[in-house]
Amino acid sequence: MSVKRNSVLLLIQLMCYFSSGSCGKVLVWPTEYSHWINIKAILDELLQRGHEVTVLTSTASILINPNTTSAINFEVYPAPSSKQHLEEHFSKWIHEWIYDTPKDDFWEFYSLVQKVFKDYSDTIEQLCRNVILNKKLMMKLHESKFDVVLADAVGPCGELLAELLKIPFVYTLRFTFGYTYEKYSGGLTVPPSYVPIVMSELSDQMTFMERVKNTVYMLYFDFWFQIFDVKRWNQFYSEVLGRPTTIYETMGKADFWLIRTYWDLEFPRPLLPNFDFVGGLHCKPAKPLPKEMEEFVQSSGENGIVVFSLGTMVSNMPEEKANMIAFALAQIPQKIHCEILILRVSHHLHRYYILPCHFFLFRAGFLRAPYTQQTLSESYKKLTHNWTTTIILIRFLINNFSDIDSILGHPKTKAFITHGGTNGVYEAIYHGVPMVGIPLFADQPDNIAHVKAKGAAIRLDYRTLTSADLLKALRMVINDPSYKENAMELSRIQHDQPVKPLDRAVFWIEFVMRHKGAKHLRVAAHDLSWFQYYSLDVIGFLLACVATVMFIISKCCLFCFQMFFKTGKKKKKE
Amino acid sequence: MSVKRNSVLLLIQLMCYFSSGSCGKVLVWPTEYSHWINIKAILDELLQRGHEVTVLTSTASILINPNTTSAINFEVYPAPSSKQHLEEHFSKWIHEWIYDTPKDDFWEFYSLVQKVFKDYSDTIEQLCRNVILNKKLMMKLHESKFDVVLADAVGPCGELLAELLKIPFVYTLRFTFGYTYEKYSGGLTVPPSYVPIVMSELSDQMTFMERVKNTVYMLYFDFWFQIFDVKRWNQFYSEVLGRPTTIYETMGKADFWLIRTYWDLEFPRPLLPNFDFVGGLHCKPAKPLPKEMEEFVQSSGENGIVVFSLGTMVSNMPEEKANMIAFALAQIPQKIHCEILILRVSHHLHRYYILPCHFFLFRAGFLRAPYTQQTLSESYKKLTHNWTTTIILIRFLINNFSDIDSILGHPKTKAFITHGGTNGVYEAIYHGVPMVGIPLFADQPDNIAHVKAKGAAIRLDYRTLTSADLLKALRMVINDPSYKENAMELSRIQHDQPVKPLDRAVFWIEFVMRHKGAKHLRVAAHDLSWFQYYSLDVIGFLLACVATVMFIISKCCLFCFQMFFKTGKKKKKE
Repeated sequence: MSVKRNSVLLLIQLMCYFSSGSCGKVLVWPTEYSHWINIKAILDELLQRGHEVTVLTSTASILINPNTTSAINFEVYPAPSSKQHLEEHFSKWIHEWIYDTPKDDFWEFYSLVQKVFKDYSDTIEQLCRNVILNKKLMMKLHESKFDVVLADAVGPCGELLAELLKIPFVYTLRFTFGYTYEKYSGGLTVPPSYVPIVMSELSDQMTFMERVKNTVYMLYFDFWFQIFDVKRWNQFYSEVLGRPTTIYETMGKADFWLIRTYWDLEFPRPLLPNFDFVGGLHCKPAKPLPKEMEEFVQSSGENGIVVFSLGTMVSNMPEEKANMIAFALAQIPQKIHCEILILRVSHHLHRYYILPCHFFLFRAGFLRAPYTQQTLSESYKKLTHNWTTTIILIRFLINNFSDIDSILGHPKTKAFITHGGTNGVYEAIYHGVPMVGIPLFADQPDNIAHVKAKGAAIRLDYRTLTSADLLKALRMVINDPSYKENAMELSRIQHDQPVKPLDRAVFWIEFVMRHKGAKHLRVAAHDLSWFQYYSLDVIGFLLACVATVMFIISKCCLFCFQMFFKTGKKKKKE
Repeated sequence: MSVKRNSVLLLIQLMCYFSSGSCGKVLVWPTEYSHWINIKAILDELLQRGHEVTVLTSTASILINPNTTSAINFEVYPAPSSKQHLEEHFSKWIHEWIYDTPKDDFWEFYSLVQKVFKDYSDTIEQLCRNVILNKKLMMKLHESKFDVVLADAVGPCGELLAELLKIPFVYTLRFTFGYTYEKYSGGLTVPPSYVPIVMSELSDQMTFMERVKNTVYMLYFDFWFQIFDVKRWNQFYSEVLGRPTTIYETMGKADFWLIRTYWDLEFPRPLLPNFDFVGGLHCKPAKPLPKEMEEFVQSSGENGIVVFSLGTMVSNMPEEKANMIAFALAQIPQKIHCEILILRVSHHLHRYYILPCHFFLFRAGFLRAPYTQQTLSESYKKLTHNWTTTIILIRFLINNFSDIDSILGHPKTKAFITHGGTNGVYEAIYHGVPMVGIPLFADQPDNIAHVKAKGAAIRLDYRTLTSADLLKALRMVINDPSYKENAMELSRIQHDQPVKPLDRAVFWIEFVMRHKGAKHLRVAAHDLSWFQYYSLDVIGFLLACVATVMFIISKCCLFCFQMFFKTGKKKKKE
């Protein structure tokens, strides 16, 4: 493995040496799960263009696998716990978020979400400390002379690394609660009157009461909710940098922000010159399916196929829920004649959710969820020829066929049942597939609210979901042509850009490397305190001026009046 | 001429027919002088790509010449006055602005500027009426089935045309005073704490008193100064559209705004998804100079050449001023050895300012400013061989050699003396040439203030200008390497963009044609009233809620206290 990677790296160096453009060295501070899948698309493109990419990953990393054949250089640092422990931790947080947060009680819901984030913050801080305080590793990073840090802003540390290595840094970010980082570190303005706050599930067309709700959300996220234990991070950053500073101040030094949405999914809102919206950068055109798979898809006839996925993070759906979904999906072929279901593979987790098949397989007593590659292989062997379509599916799963773009982009695909993760929603938008959204947590409810507002999706509630609801929704998005039309319109917007999102993302990283930053794109607001930013000092001064002038005028009037009065009295006396 | 144009148009139609991309029909509402030069670059590119371009121009148009060999289709409508009259009018306004406005008296200065704009507004309104109320012309435009209107926002009417023709429209705009149109029609936010207001000549790094000045400018432009007689325009638009409307509301329907600056000249500030900054779109790489010209430039030796231009709008500089400038420039070859001056040609006006030569020629008694092509030809004949460099210059002028890009982009060019017009400043930025700015009016003082703040120019005051000042400034920008370095940095920013500005401008026009608008880029702020936009109703509601709760609580407390008090009294009585 090592020999293979070294030869790839050597090849890159040679490409750099002979290429006309300058090649740079990129240090990456990634985040797990779908965030990694997204940033990986950028890293692959950077490698393609001859740059050297080094990813910092812990020994407990879940998806970021240093043992791949990729040309990425992995710098592995020790984690405070094992991979299994971290994975269990993540699963626990997700489970708490999905099942334990009371949706109807705003305060309790966000108290629990905050608790989840408190745990996440502690984990990230521990990982960050393990890098920053590791003198040997930091020395090595210093000596490597990187040109830029590419960091996922949702897990801090990248900015501290860049500050210590004295190099510029670029963020990749989907969102933070209430756009807190984007506002307080990035300098974005987010007017609550027409920009729906993240987590509010509102669109940009708000009624009066919706605007009240949006403003309350903004106030809550601005003054109450804390994504991270900011005080602790501020203290840590101040200690490390040897001067009083804050995490927001350090993050505010970002040269460029790559936001992982675009104006197809996102509602238009104010931006800044050093923000670019590169949503859908990981999407690719559909390739022809393998022969067996193509036959399988073609066998669906005119009714086509439906794609199902619940993303990379859900690993232990209750059996009852799975059965309920499977029961609904199993009815489609009978009711809408010959609808066939293909399943998205959580291939990075090596764990598969094959819900429609699940229904059959479960009934046949072959399987129990969750499935691993091993149990699938075993059940495959046990299966009789009655289960041909299921067999074909399982065979593709076992062969790690997981090119979701080729499946979603197939002309036979009629709908996508999704949890609403940004990556998945963008894949559907890219290929113009209408959606049935069953959002679970994080930005998923918002994503689905957005595509629903744009007429390309129906939203279902996971907790109260019934088979009948799912069936009805699925029939609606398939049979009502407006959903397909709207999905195609979003797809046209996604495809019709002056430069593809991935190329723009890579361009700005390269720009920051070439110019050692992008200072010309950085608003001067970063140099102002909050009261200067809102011109409160200027307003105070102008009001004081007006007050002084009015005071002098009134005093003069009073004086004149008194003089006149006195003269009158004197005259009367005389 | 007509046959030639028809064959070109036919060729375009054929190109359209056989090309894979769809070709559209663009209707253009242009503005005169440098605005036309800039928009013409876009039109030429649109023609190149196979689109049909129709420009509305009046019989009195100054630069927009329907008798050119261009493939542009001109729709000429009658003007209320002659070309000469309009030209004299423009000259008068410019003269008033440059010479009659008292720079030190803010109120008087802007009162006079407003007067100038009042005249301009009346002229544009008259031209607009001549189109809109011309039934035959409007019928023809209706029948032509245009796909988009491309309008210069500084002269209204384009938006009304688009509204009547029921087609989308795209703006091209450099600026409006206080960013009024951009704010009230475009929806941009312009925080006065870090965005210098146009005309303030401030940078984005402001002291407290500068922020006070900036805020005062903003308040003045927001609540006092009126670019146009808005009431009259509102009435006109309401009459024509048959419903109560305002000019700002109609302008607010623009699908896209192409702003003619970029972050090299402009300080970074908030923008919106339907704004793109395409400054420098008219600039082109330098081509080799004609042989004689190249020899002439090469003869400057190591010291190189200096380029001089006062733009397209100045046609009657006082002789005393011209002499003073010429006197300074004439000293350069003696002091900085062999500096040779090439002059920018106001070729569209067929009037030439050849100031350095002027000095010699004037002394020799050959010429009197302003020169016309005819007087230049005559004086050329009269000249003796002693004036070789001057002769060569004049010969180029007579031969209409006016490729400013090739002269500014020549490696021998050391500096550019400019009035600071946006086009000229962008040509200098594009080719990385440091500037000596002598701003005259409009955005020129601001442009020069910006390049000065970025270390690529020295600013001189036209009214108080002395030969010594000009000489000193010129020597400084040539001999102090920081000016060249900073100019080169701006040039690198200009060249290092994901897509060239011209391509971006054309892309968005084509996008609007393809999608019949760009609604997905338009913020929902357009649907809000000003108090909704600033969430004043929501704030009022929330304060009322808080006040009600506090009132109820205090009433309850009071009631409890009274009850307690009464019980106490009763007990005491008992």
